[in-house]
Amino acid sequence: MSTPGQPERGERALIRRLAETLANLASAGVPFGDDMAQMSPGDNGLLGTTDMLMDGVDFDSRKHAWFDIGRKSMAVNLSDCAAMAVRPLSALGAVALNNRLSMDDALELHRGIRACGDEFDCPLVGGDTNSWDAPTAIAITVIACPEPGLRPVRRDGAKPGDLIYLTGPVGGSILGRHLRPVPRIKTALAVSRELSPRAMIDISDGVAVDLGHIIEASSCAAEIDEASLALAIHADAQTLADQDGTPARDHALHDGEDFELVIVLPPDADQAVCQRLGLLPLGRILSGSGLMRVTHEGRRTPIEPRGWEHFR
Amino acid sequence: MSTPGQPERGERALIRRLAETLANLASAGVPFGDDMAQMSPGDNGLLGTTDMLMDGVDFDSRKHAWFDIGRKSMAVNLSDCAAMAVRPLSALGAVALNNRLSMDDALELHRGIRACGDEFDCPLVGGDTNSWDAPTAIAITVIACPEPGLRPVRRDGAKPGDLIYLTGPVGGSILGRHLRPVPRIKTALAVSRELSPRAMIDISDGVAVDLGHIIEASSCAAEIDEASLALAIHADAQTLADQDGTPARDHALHDGEDFELVIVLPPDADQAVCQRLGLLPLGRILSGSGLMRVTHEGRRTPIEPRGWEHFR
Repeated sequence: MSTPGQPERGERALIRRLAETLANLASAGVPFGDDMAQMSPGDNGLLGTTDMLMDGVDFDSRKHAWFDIGRKSMAVNLSDCAAMAVRPLSALGAVALNNRLSMDDALELHRGIRACGDEFDCPLVGGDTNSWDAPTAIAITVIACPEPGLRPVRRDGAKPGDLIYLTGPVGGSILGRHLRPVPRIKTALAVSRELSPRAMIDISDGVAVDLGHIIEASSCAAEIDEASLALAIHADAQTLADQDGTPARDHALHDGEDFELVIVLPPDADQAVCQRLGLLPLGRILSGSGLMRVTHEGRRTPIEPRGWEHFR
Repeated sequence: MSTPGQPERGERALIRRLAETLANLASAGVPFGDDMAQMSPGDNGLLGTTDMLMDGVDFDSRKHAWFDIGRKSMAVNLSDCAAMAVRPLSALGAVALNNRLSMDDALELHRGIRACGDEFDCPLVGGDTNSWDAPTAIAITVIACPEPGLRPVRRDGAKPGDLIYLTGPVGGSILGRHLRPVPRIKTALAVSRELSPRAMIDISDGVAVDLGHIIEASSCAAEIDEASLALAIHADAQTLADQDGTPARDHALHDGEDFELVIVLPPDADQAVCQRLGLLPLGRILSGSGLMRVTHEGRRTPIEPRGWEHFR
């Protein structure tokens, strides 16, 4: 929130101002601000995504193995491909390595990037290697293509009455899962083929914030069933709750870096397919705006988004 | 050079070891280590390039305007497109902004990136915005496609007897041109269309080092005519020579960040076309190995490569 007299700051404010001036190929399909950008025109045009991970912000090289750091750097981009239900093609990596890294550290980082890419048929094909005295920064770029006959799944297609699902339980990723995210590409492609999804996003900033992106882009509201949420709490969220006293439910709603998907399906979605794909029901889309949780008696409580924002 | 007993270090050693393990789509056309990487298979497959620029290494935010820094971040990638004679399609940008940057600085950086992209029909279509306490790092990725009927021009096609040209005079870019590089895309595409080039590269590390990449990849030698070199010395190289006492010729051979192209043409290249495109003759490709300069009496002197290397 900007204070009168103070210049507006924060990542979202910056991105909003960038979006006003950013060129985009929106006529070709994907509007600015989705998980990936349209890189070449046409319904079969390629999509691209890039993510920069920085030591001390997105990982901690004093605690995390360089292989895992490399793996995560690739995985967060592949998770963007999952979020749009497109198939990754290949990747480029640019690194600024801290000068104190050993050759073995650098090679381990590279092996982690490559192992994750290979696992999802997304070979690392080139890049740029640099070094400096500052902490290590890693920027991976992945390009991807829509499946034949299927369009990328955007954030802005949710409609009142639609149903909300998760690809898996959430919360407490900080206990370790945040370093070993599994991009849900396979599930995403199956959902896209079999369930005509209206909107999808991956959970990087937390269920509340990322579902918030869907309802904002789709100009609608959403409610999360408390009973459904209770069944979608990851065991790590409970462990963390026992340690820090914050309710496990709050960890499930607000913890970032789960990299599960939030999937919005039409009201008549085939429940047998949802079950086969392991989707967990979470709630529904409503008209209006804002995110709420609702008890089985129908009592609604607004959910305040919380999450990490860069450039504050 | 590695010292016995000391682990091998340096950017080139690292890149060599990465290349051993790097996946590549070489069967599709472009081998690992060229200016761009093959991102999708096939003769018409897309190419991609990424470059990371870091404050205090590639630019100095205390001296350089953020608009110019943004412009350069895009331009170095477009110069890679020129080096392969392919047409840029679109770009992604990932930034780690130092927390002390103002919103205006961040927007100026963005405007510079975008202005350069727009100038060369390469819209910035998306990216990733982050901030941290370390210096600003900027990673731009550009994808490009071959012109219909033309293949990307690689580094490894030079043959003994071929002629070497430059797209413009070189040296002394540090006096200011290094911040405002002009990607030679238009000339590169014309050369590719009209002159069947055997090999090309852009000059980021200096004529000697970058021509060295061509002869290494092509397994041959090269000689630079001293008389031709004298006519390819940029006025800035002379100014710098007057200031620092280093011969202008050495600045022309070894200064980096000119972003002109080194172009290798077959012996029967149409001289009228070369003149029309403003190409400057520089020398010729020989069998053997190594880079030399040669007087008009035929006296040859080896040229030692010098240049910046990361991760030393």
